[in-house]
Amino acid sequence: MKFMKQTELFAKTLKEAPKDEKSINAQLLLRAGFIYKEMAGVYSYLPLGLKVLKKIENIIRGEMNRIGGQEILMTVLQPKKIWEETGRWSKEIGEAMYKCREDSKEIGLGPTHEEMLTDIIRHYVKSYTDLPLYLYQIQTKFRKEPRARSGLLRGREFAMKDLYSFHSSEEDFKKYYQKVIQAYHNILKRCGLKAILTEASGEGFTKGYTHEFQVLSEGGEDKIVYCPQGDFSQNKEIARFRAGNKCPRCGQALREDKSIEIGNIFPLGTKYAEAMNAFFVDKDGKRKIIIMGCYGIGSSRTMATVVEVHHDKKGIIWPEEISPFDTHLIQIEKKPKIKSAAEKIYKDLQKNGKEVLYDDRDKSAGEKFADADLIGIPTRIVVSERTLEKKCVEIKKRNETKTKLIKLGYVK
Amino acid sequence: MKFMKQTELFAKTLKEAPKDEKSINAQLLLRAGFIYKEMAGVYSYLPLGLKVLKKIENIIRGEMNRIGGQEILMTVLQPKKIWEETGRWSKEIGEAMYKCREDSKEIGLGPTHEEMLTDIIRHYVKSYTDLPLYLYQIQTKFRKEPRARSGLLRGREFAMKDLYSFHSSEEDFKKYYQKVIQAYHNILKRCGLKAILTEASGEGFTKGYTHEFQVLSEGGEDKIVYCPQGDFSQNKEIARFRAGNKCPRCGQALREDKSIEIGNIFPLGTKYAEAMNAFFVDKDGKRKIIIMGCYGIGSSRTMATVVEVHHDKKGIIWPEEISPFDTHLIQIEKKPKIKSAAEKIYKDLQKNGKEVLYDDRDKSAGEKFADADLIGIPTRIVVSERTLEKKCVEIKKRNETKTKLIKLGYVK
Repeated sequence: MKFMKQTELFAKTLKEAPKDEKSINAQLLLRAGFIYKEMAGVYSYLPLGLKVLKKIENIIRGEMNRIGGQEILMTVLQPKKIWEETGRWSKEIGEAMYKCREDSKEIGLGPTHEEMLTDIIRHYVKSYTDLPLYLYQIQTKFRKEPRARSGLLRGREFAMKDLYSFHSSEEDFKKYYQKVIQAYHNILKRCGLKAILTEASGEGFTKGYTHEFQVLSEGGEDKIVYCPQGDFSQNKEIARFRAGNKCPRCGQALREDKSIEIGNIFPLGTKYAEAMNAFFVDKDGKRKIIIMGCYGIGSSRTMATVVEVHHDKKGIIWPEEISPFDTHLIQIEKKPKIKSAAEKIYKDLQKNGKEVLYDDRDKSAGEKFADADLIGIPTRIVVSERTLEKKCVEIKKRNETKTKLIKLGYVK
Repeated sequence: MKFMKQTELFAKTLKEAPKDEKSINAQLLLRAGFIYKEMAGVYSYLPLGLKVLKKIENIIRGEMNRIGGQEILMTVLQPKKIWEETGRWSKEIGEAMYKCREDSKEIGLGPTHEEMLTDIIRHYVKSYTDLPLYLYQIQTKFRKEPRARSGLLRGREFAMKDLYSFHSSEEDFKKYYQKVIQAYHNILKRCGLKAILTEASGEGFTKGYTHEFQVLSEGGEDKIVYCPQGDFSQNKEIARFRAGNKCPRCGQALREDKSIEIGNIFPLGTKYAEAMNAFFVDKDGKRKIIIMGCYGIGSSRTMATVVEVHHDKKGIIWPEEISPFDTHLIQIEKKPKIKSAAEKIYKDLQKNGKEVLYDDRDKSAGEKFADADLIGIPTRIVVSERTLEKKCVEIKKRNETKTKLIKLGYVK
């Protein structure tokens, strides 16, 4: 679906967001027809929304492959027995697990996959020559969530990339950890986000500190203390400093702001491998425990964060690389000559590899412009009687106010 | 992951399949390292398996887009209230639904999505101008399954494409139904399968007869009565005829054989729209009930069926378009000149757009050939001292026995 006529596109924009939605991301994504609310924290993706989600996931996939990640797909249904090995069935993250029964058996819906993947790799990894190993999946996760009030920022059902790395030495792990940090910065930058690498607590995944990628945002649920210089940041929960204190690195005054954590990376050490007997035989012939890291980034949460950061009163402002379409072509009035000029431009843009949404609806210019602003495609092209008189179309960027006229033959 | 060295590929082949797996598809896919068994009927996809699954899903996606389908993604978690509207929460398909609780609420895991999508479209479809509408998703489904003994053929958790169509008239529905039949034949043909369109019962989805796409297979769980000429077929459950009876269309003797149903298409009529108040205003200004069809095809089940149909004693024989790689390049012995010749060919094949698995492991020729046969990539290229003496490589197709030598400069 690289191009589409708006008369055929499912679904329509809405004048108002549902009253029970307080978050900007849910309000705008619902109104613009990107998502549909099934329950609190549970949203279906309509065609526009799924296009954005897939683009984000493809960016993630590319960056994961670049650092040696191999994609797999584990299951949602998880047997109780592997969770009992680590003791997490009913504590820590296990408390947030949805559980159901089949006959006498209890089955969990995966809120995360450390247990499952440790079980898989202990069946295959025998020797140091089998390591390192980097496996990731892009999959739907489930967590009971009493605070599901932030749209796609905190879902009961949400899309996530989780990467797990397996190493024969702490040194090797540390090198890879740095590579993942770089990959995460690349991903977020390509999605139009600037993230602050922040120290945080282990949240039941590990005893030590971990790192979160935090994006400053008014709609955020977290608070971070950070140096504007960018070389120090701690999650408010664990922070030893307050706003105004001096940065321990550069001495500048620290700030404190609201921020969503968008990704996190955990040095898991040997916690899971030890509990689940995941060993390898090292060069020296000795049996050793596998060292692990895990690295999460929510793809649906990234989508929500982008909307929280990139919007104005009129609607969403998508960054180029994850916009559902490149160009929103709008035809004003249904006169045959305007229609045929618009159709020609529609085809030319397709030929040039553009992804085009073509507003061929029988609506007023005002309604069309309002919908275009709400949907938020980066480039708007308008074809009207007035522009055609000048043998031109009008081009406007969503994040700018000025328009300009371009000769018909030069529309690309 | 268009190309990969086998030393880096996760996971290894296994000498024997687990004893509790009786089905050919599970035995071969497990042994060849495509999948990992989590529980009966619940399998994770390892890199090779996920590649095949994604290729099948991309074929399906292309054919759905071609008949006007718009891709969406609905949720696994489903609220009880929409299932109560149709009365299916605890009968028909609802009996097979996994259910869990959050606080006082019951939530179901989607075994199918008629209720959920009917709920969505009744919020957006108001007029005949909003119809027809064709929406599909490729998603993970969940069904309690006491008979989960057939590997990926019958899973508790499985991947499926489900398309739903919405129409303002029966006539319009019938036209689209024929288009979907053609699209399904295209999909299955591209996956290397020949399907028989078979009449079947409604299975609680609809009262009337429906159509199944059946593929003849020894490992199948169904039985069909069919005309070898191809113009008549009924599922054994509902068949009025037996093997040897005359075909009611052409008079030829009917056959009876084992077969998996791989896809099904249901004329739903107004069953769901009526129960859930999904109306539209027609041209004549009257409120009418929306007419629906639904069309399923299991992507994981297609993968299993291909293995059931295309294998020999040595392993899987993948059809070209869904094979994890095009070419399995095998280097025999680790001598530097053989290695460097193989590396060059590996790069040349990549440049020519081939997807290559390169067996650079330190194993015997016998082990490498056995693994190649088990994994089942269509073309095998061998580089050895013997072939290099003749400035050649040896090429063999997985589904043929003869080998041929090709000059080094001509390997593409």
